[in-house]
Amino acid sequence: MTIAFAGERGAFAELAAHEFFGLRRKVSPVPEFGDVFREVAGGRFRFGVVPIENSLSGSIHQNYDHLLESNLVIVGEVLLLVRQFLIANKGTKRADLVRIFSHPAVFPQCKKFLKKFPHFSVVPVSNTAGAVKKIKDENLRDAAAIASMQAAIDFDMQVVAGNIEDTKWNTTRFLVIAKSTRDLPASAKKTKSSVVFSMTSKPGALLACLNVFAKRGINLFKIESRPVRKKARGFAYLFYLDFEGDARKEIHKEALRELQKLTTFYRFLGSYPVGRPSDPQYRTRARHR
Amino acid sequence: MTIAFAGERGAFAELAAHEFFGLRRKVSPVPEFGDVFREVAGGRFRFGVVPIENSLSGSIHQNYDHLLESNLVIVGEVLLLVRQFLIANKGTKRADLVRIFSHPAVFPQCKKFLKKFPHFSVVPVSNTAGAVKKIKDENLRDAAAIASMQAAIDFDMQVVAGNIEDTKWNTTRFLVIAKSTRDLPASAKKTKSSVVFSMTSKPGALLACLNVFAKRGINLFKIESRPVRKKARGFAYLFYLDFEGDARKEIHKEALRELQKLTTFYRFLGSYPVGRPSDPQYRTRARHR
Repeated sequence: MTIAFAGERGAFAELAAHEFFGLRRKVSPVPEFGDVFREVAGGRFRFGVVPIENSLSGSIHQNYDHLLESNLVIVGEVLLLVRQFLIANKGTKRADLVRIFSHPAVFPQCKKFLKKFPHFSVVPVSNTAGAVKKIKDENLRDAAAIASMQAAIDFDMQVVAGNIEDTKWNTTRFLVIAKSTRDLPASAKKTKSSVVFSMTSKPGALLACLNVFAKRGINLFKIESRPVRKKARGFAYLFYLDFEGDARKEIHKEALRELQKLTTFYRFLGSYPVGRPSDPQYRTRARHR
Repeated sequence: MTIAFAGERGAFAELAAHEFFGLRRKVSPVPEFGDVFREVAGGRFRFGVVPIENSLSGSIHQNYDHLLESNLVIVGEVLLLVRQFLIANKGTKRADLVRIFSHPAVFPQCKKFLKKFPHFSVVPVSNTAGAVKKIKDENLRDAAAIASMQAAIDFDMQVVAGNIEDTKWNTTRFLVIAKSTRDLPASAKKTKSSVVFSMTSKPGALLACLNVFAKRGINLFKIESRPVRKKARGFAYLFYLDFEGDARKEIHKEALRELQKLTTFYRFLGSYPVGRPSDPQYRTRARHR
């Protein structure tokens, strides 16, 4: 039962997969988000793990798009706290460093830390684990990489500084996707459900849809409108909605049936246990390399 | 009357500023998003232009955060179509190219184009205009950069391929911010207004807020919930709402007064003309360099 994520070993998506499935499950990288969906749909992997939103940078619409184009369902979520580490060769001191390698999206997350070392020059790379490998392979003594703790473990390198991210509550939400929910054990956690829909754009149309939930006392976790270009001219709105409840229960089934009647497009995405923000766990070096 | 944007000359934010204010206005770069807000609040610039959402990658929450922390208001919006160009030295042929420089966020936007040239190796940089300059300065004949057309104009370089982005409707929405709306001419366009609020989390609470607009026949353009960490434990939800209307008109004023009573946090962000998706315009090389 293998699990796919997009990117390189040590990526946060891999850590999210281990958070959900445990450290002993086999988790494998594929090149891109679209490949995760294709490979799970094609049966090569039973599960996929993809990021869907971040607390600073918002929803990742392209993964909503992939989800809508596929026939996959959401079977779980992971809320992973983003933790960054400054990683160098063993014996390297902070005073030796002049070059810092990382993905351009990472530097703004560590602004407060980097401000303390104005002589550091930052060098963009597309793959943070690859930068750790390069520093090791070329035995660079003046360079460090900002990457996940997992990269330090994998390449047996030294952590010069830990948890250097500005915001302790920066969280990335990952979805666990599959062809069906069959393979998962029952969970004692609260359940949430996700649905995407659109309807004719007139005042009160959204209100009627939300009333389906309010009149049954159902809590909403997320609502988001997104304008999408229609074939010819003009925009239609897609609404993403997460609510508390399980679509296998009668009250929620009823709510969804009513919602479906009010909408011009409707897709149920899945019912799954509510995740809690958690610190990443790391695997040992030997495993899965 | 100068205008600030974050980043480097030729950035899409600069093109958005010219789209709104015209090509003859002086537009100046500052290092980061936070600086745009600080400099406009401090009076060094009269206007700022910042991205707030993208049609593929979603809302840029950090700029909503900056807006909430500041006392600035939204006075306009620009919906800019994202256009990418492959730029090289004059005389370089496509067959000469082996290295392509760009920001790591740009490569996925041009996937279809890049797939046609599997021998290209992509090289990440943090500043696309800087890559064009480097290719020129070092007279590289095997390299091109993916950047905006403005960078080709600024450095007098050759466009090897134009509009190489996968999606013709990938749009970035920019906000124009200022201390007050005083300095702007009246617009004949439709007006929209933006507001941020939160309220106690119970079923139906959001519904009551939306009903304020529905019962007056007011159209909504955008609704988005965002969980934000509270000081101690637990999350509160912020709602971003854009509606059709002008807060200077009595019916909308009334709606906002009613909304305010239903919420525990409320901030009016501004009324401004509705933008339309538009192709970038480019300035000539001589200007403002």
